[in-house]
Amino acid sequence: MTKPSSAIETLIDMMARLPGLGPRSARRAVLYLVRKRGQLLGPLAAAMAEVAQTARECVSCGNITTGELCPICTDPRRQNGMLCVVEDVGDLWAMERTGAFVGRYHVLGGTLSALDDVGPEELGLPRLERRITDENVTEVILALNTTMDGLTTAHYVADLLEGRVRITSLAQGVPVGGELDYLDDGTIGAALKARRDL
Amino acid sequence: MTKPSSAIETLIDMMARLPGLGPRSARRAVLYLVRKRGQLLGPLAAAMAEVAQTARECVSCGNITTGELCPICTDPRRQNGMLCVVEDVGDLWAMERTGAFVGRYHVLGGTLSALDDVGPEELGLPRLERRITDENVTEVILALNTTMDGLTTAHYVADLLEGRVRITSLAQGVPVGGELDYLDDGTIGAALKARRDL
Repeated sequence: MTKPSSAIETLIDMMARLPGLGPRSARRAVLYLVRKRGQLLGPLAAAMAEVAQTARECVSCGNITTGELCPICTDPRRQNGMLCVVEDVGDLWAMERTGAFVGRYHVLGGTLSALDDVGPEELGLPRLERRITDENVTEVILALNTTMDGLTTAHYVADLLEGRVRITSLAQGVPVGGELDYLDDGTIGAALKARRDL
Repeated sequence: MTKPSSAIETLIDMMARLPGLGPRSARRAVLYLVRKRGQLLGPLAAAMAEVAQTARECVSCGNITTGELCPICTDPRRQNGMLCVVEDVGDLWAMERTGAFVGRYHVLGGTLSALDDVGPEELGLPRLERRITDENVTEVILALNTTMDGLTTAHYVADLLEGRVRITSLAQGVPVGGELDYLDDGTIGAALKARRDL
């Protein structure tokens, strides 16, 4: 058996390590790239090299950016006293896509986990406490995932900041466009408990 | 709404054009790459740049390679009089993974299609005819997809070469490990017609 040339083989192996791609889809993707080597492969290699050289974490909020501070932290209009705490940068991007939040963020980069040795220091919680004073934060919105780890972390952060700022969390309830029949019992129960007057 | 920095945004847009990745999985992949920018993103960019510069089509068989001729065409042990005709390089790789074929290949790069203006010239069929003489080919194995286009192309190639070499095609039948109950009628019918004595 003769394998594809070693450079192509190496590229397939690397692509297969991306989330959402396995060996088969990595092969398909690489074949597609080789066919489009003029239009896509070259520019993609250049874009990757640029991001590899310039991408870093915002020293204030933990967002991915190319400078010292991310565009959200340098925008004075985003300093409105609200700080949204998220688990990772993907969650921040998800919040930004809604366009519904105009304050700043704080990216924890994970959740508290005794097993994985992740404590308050690793999550940048002392930095969060400093930001509350420095940036005149009046409300911290906890937008953590509603997994066990996310809830534990939310409780810890809420305890830590209690009495110093207003602490809120995203509402739990029926998703927009969701059908009751397909929802889990916990979500329906939470939505019932948090029912609103019409 | 503040978007991720333009370099990252560009990278996400490009990744989303790969087969098997949509906007959401492209974001996930890029986020993963940015987190692993030391271990994976830099080397991946370098691997892509290398392939973009070196990858080209083998002038003889159409396989993707880094030289003038691919390793299969330069290996004298692979010149055994058998030539396997496949639609594209992905099919060639699939055949090679089996390790069951020790001859050479001829990659058509598509199928005949009047609608898309793909004729015998575009598929390199004159080149295939020359190879049959030059490389003393005695058997041409048609390993085209069993789609309508693949079958049409197979028939055309078979007509073209009739009387000059032995022409065979891959057997049709029940896949190894396949369950009859889940197979389509056409496959079961073909397997019945091509039944073998035990």
